[in-house]
Amino acid sequence: MNTSNPTAAVLVIGDEILSGRTHDTNMRHIATTLGLIGVVVKEARTVCDEQRHIVKAVRELSAAYTYVFTTGGIGPTHDDITADAVAAAFGRSIDVRDDARAILKAWYDAKGVELTEPRLRMARIPEGAELIENRVSGAPGFRLENVHVMAGVPRIMQAMLDTIIPTLKQGARIHAVSLHVEGLKEGDVAGPLKKVAQAMPNIAFGSYPGPVDAPVPFVNLVARSTDEAALANAVIALEDMVAEMGLTGGRST
Amino acid sequence: MNTSNPTAAVLVIGDEILSGRTHDTNMRHIATTLGLIGVVVKEARTVCDEQRHIVKAVRELSAAYTYVFTTGGIGPTHDDITADAVAAAFGRSIDVRDDARAILKAWYDAKGVELTEPRLRMARIPEGAELIENRVSGAPGFRLENVHVMAGVPRIMQAMLDTIIPTLKQGARIHAVSLHVEGLKEGDVAGPLKKVAQAMPNIAFGSYPGPVDAPVPFVNLVARSTDEAALANAVIALEDMVAEMGLTGGRST
Repeated sequence: MNTSNPTAAVLVIGDEILSGRTHDTNMRHIATTLGLIGVVVKEARTVCDEQRHIVKAVRELSAAYTYVFTTGGIGPTHDDITADAVAAAFGRSIDVRDDARAILKAWYDAKGVELTEPRLRMARIPEGAELIENRVSGAPGFRLENVHVMAGVPRIMQAMLDTIIPTLKQGARIHAVSLHVEGLKEGDVAGPLKKVAQAMPNIAFGSYPGPVDAPVPFVNLVARSTDEAALANAVIALEDMVAEMGLTGGRST
Repeated sequence: MNTSNPTAAVLVIGDEILSGRTHDTNMRHIATTLGLIGVVVKEARTVCDEQRHIVKAVRELSAAYTYVFTTGGIGPTHDDITADAVAAAFGRSIDVRDDARAILKAWYDAKGVELTEPRLRMARIPEGAELIENRVSGAPGFRLENVHVMAGVPRIMQAMLDTIIPTLKQGARIHAVSLHVEGLKEGDVAGPLKKVAQAMPNIAFGSYPGPVDAPVPFVNLVARSTDEAALANAVIALEDMVAEMGLTGGRST
């Protein structure tokens, strides 16, 4: 399945994810949300809190995909180095910017909280970047070139992404239908599935076995396409295929 | 914190993860397991089921880190292209190999299941690769150069990883202690935390705020080091720091 959809990469920043201590949920949220407007996430990376690693990933992903979305590393503490790294990736200067400072001041004044020096670090925004509103906790994200820099805390990231979505190019939405087939073995369905896939080159077919300790073994057969009518036919073809094997599948989308 | 520990990258292969439909749990398991023997995961990538993307990622990660661990895309169906892509990344030929075929034949014979042509695809192993035993479902993974190719189904991947672990170079284990501090705000702790971090350059300190909708707001302060005695002092320094702010923290490891 080839599409002309806009593409995207997600860049998750933080040792805490890589160490396995914290489980990232942002990648999945971003992928699902972008999928709704036809922006296809083609790659996700998680890198550690070291500037050279972030700079390298930002440059590579920015060059390879329509959009990049980063999460994490824009808070007030010394290990929050994403803004500086993104500035460095594009050779831009970075400092506390008046527009961001005004946003922070108004936010903390309203809460009666002091705008300390560390909090002011969150107003460090690269030259030429556009601010991304943060309705949850004040400190803005930013967009520089095609890179969107967002917070790591899921609810803040989600709110930022909601404000970004209307600014993105949209593509044809990729629809997916899954057929859950109990009692199916991948080794038995692989041959028939390949034939179905060859007959329908505009549909992407995937096969995903369930856990080995599932009470009833199953395989999920998934068909994806931007063409809903073609997809409906594809699912019928999958159902016919499993029927010939004496099995039935349960659809879900 | 600089260490001379062996480094690793995890490469997750599959459209199903990138679409957000399936949630990857393998990265976290690999990171946690490798951490126990002092192998530090420095990067994780998820790429789609397209050969050129897999080839590029394998080459880059293999060159940059001590070890690479891939998951996914080694089953019997047409969308399982990892083995061929890894062979291509290293310019090796690939075909059904006798040793892998013998393993599959014995496995399926014992189960009374036919070794079909698609199942035989799982015996496609690159020239010069070493097989990785699969005690759960028969079909082996393989190691080529510094790249370990494993299944995507978590229990199979975990069993393969268990057989790989004894073959790896070990590093000093990185210990971590977390201090869960309720009522703390990152903007308030950033200044004191930076001072503690500057005084203890051999400890890596991180600060991770809880969800914005937590009933009681909190921050987790994390210290990491290979030196357990130094780490114990670091945690005491963190406790003293939050005590000066009129707060207390709960330790966990």
